[in-house]
Amino acid sequence: MSRIFVIGLGPGNPDQQTPEARSALSLATDVIGYGPYVDRVDLPETVVRHPSDNRVELDRARHALELAEQGRCVAIVSGGDAGVFGMASALFEAIDQGPEHWRATDVTVVPGVSAVLAAAARIGAPLGGDFCVMSLSDNLKPWDVVCRRLKLAAEAGFVIALYNPRSKARPWQLGEALDVLRKSLPGTVPVAFARAIGRPDERLVLTDLTHADPKLVDMSTLVLIGSELTRKIDRPQGDAWLYTSRSVPS
Amino acid sequence: MSRIFVIGLGPGNPDQQTPEARSALSLATDVIGYGPYVDRVDLPETVVRHPSDNRVELDRARHALELAEQGRCVAIVSGGDAGVFGMASALFEAIDQGPEHWRATDVTVVPGVSAVLAAAARIGAPLGGDFCVMSLSDNLKPWDVVCRRLKLAAEAGFVIALYNPRSKARPWQLGEALDVLRKSLPGTVPVAFARAIGRPDERLVLTDLTHADPKLVDMSTLVLIGSELTRKIDRPQGDAWLYTSRSVPS
Repeated sequence: MSRIFVIGLGPGNPDQQTPEARSALSLATDVIGYGPYVDRVDLPETVVRHPSDNRVELDRARHALELAEQGRCVAIVSGGDAGVFGMASALFEAIDQGPEHWRATDVTVVPGVSAVLAAAARIGAPLGGDFCVMSLSDNLKPWDVVCRRLKLAAEAGFVIALYNPRSKARPWQLGEALDVLRKSLPGTVPVAFARAIGRPDERLVLTDLTHADPKLVDMSTLVLIGSELTRKIDRPQGDAWLYTSRSVPS
Repeated sequence: MSRIFVIGLGPGNPDQQTPEARSALSLATDVIGYGPYVDRVDLPETVVRHPSDNRVELDRARHALELAEQGRCVAIVSGGDAGVFGMASALFEAIDQGPEHWRATDVTVVPGVSAVLAAAARIGAPLGGDFCVMSLSDNLKPWDVVCRRLKLAAEAGFVIALYNPRSKARPWQLGEALDVLRKSLPGTVPVAFARAIGRPDERLVLTDLTHADPKLVDMSTLVLIGSELTRKIDRPQGDAWLYTSRSVPS
């Protein structure tokens, strides 16, 4: 059976992985993905694992298509949802650029709970209004495009969720992004750094735009920037909640 | 046990509902939500169901808080993810505006696969780049805010996902929204109308901005407007795939 599943494994907590993802994995003869995601999958030893480094998405996608050509049933795995800065787009890009017969491949994308949804749920309801989801990485797009998008998103009043906010190779971008946002938004808008939500090493920092410190952020962190309609509810004990009002005043 | 779970039930296909959602439901003594979502939940007869009409979110949230005060364990249910135009924001708004002691309520938001993620997976990988998610309803925000946000989102190059695109009470808004977008985007950008994805009455229409016909859309439809980087892959059989390139040219 020549078939490819592109599977969103969810944020990391097995209870947040869908039965559909599990069923699809159970059909696989081969699992392809970034090493830590391939490691996360519990499968019989007969299944061939093809872990790879980060940032080789197109190679990985072509490899999956070649294996499927050979009659293998391939699971390409991503954390969260594969359609949100995961492997789904890379697979279709490989098909688009590849030989004509790859278009006949049987591809099923299995959606998952994305990191942004898991982080938002942990925090309260920060996505209660209109929002946008951006990757802060300038590996695949020019940095001035990132800054322009941030400015327009802030002007639009969107809550902003940032994937890939900071890495060893990209240490300064988040600081500059926050500076861009400070020009358009009040310093009091809530900011959350939600790291590894649903996993044992989860860490949540609630702050505001004025005080947001990029040094508290790593590649496993989802950064949420509130809008002017995002409110904080302090509680007698436990983390405060953030929510964004559904209503926009005239 | 005085406790509230706000649960995203997923898009409708039970295989896309997380085990965490099921576990939370199994603890509930009471289920609150919009009628069709309460109906979707399979629970023992001892559980009290409180179905309500659409557009009474705050009343529903206050009811949940009052029941929790009485020691009930309440599940508030939403389709998709409760944080994305679901009940989560309404609950926190009710707490924020309510008596101080409501802030001590034990609230757990259980994330789910949102409609936008399920629709995107069905279509290919249209959310492969930066994207925004908006409600097109002008019940809770002025229509000129909606139009302004659409214009800025198009200028930013976001793929745009629209919830609540059209209803009997709001028949003209989607047509006007498409006209706003036509001023900023080429008529060739792909548009998808993804109705009830994952449910038996699923229907998918792939078109482009020039030809997008609002009459094909109802309240159960998720509208996706591509960016200039969204591509269509025709296939020898079956629906075409849409994907958005991860790379933005300089």
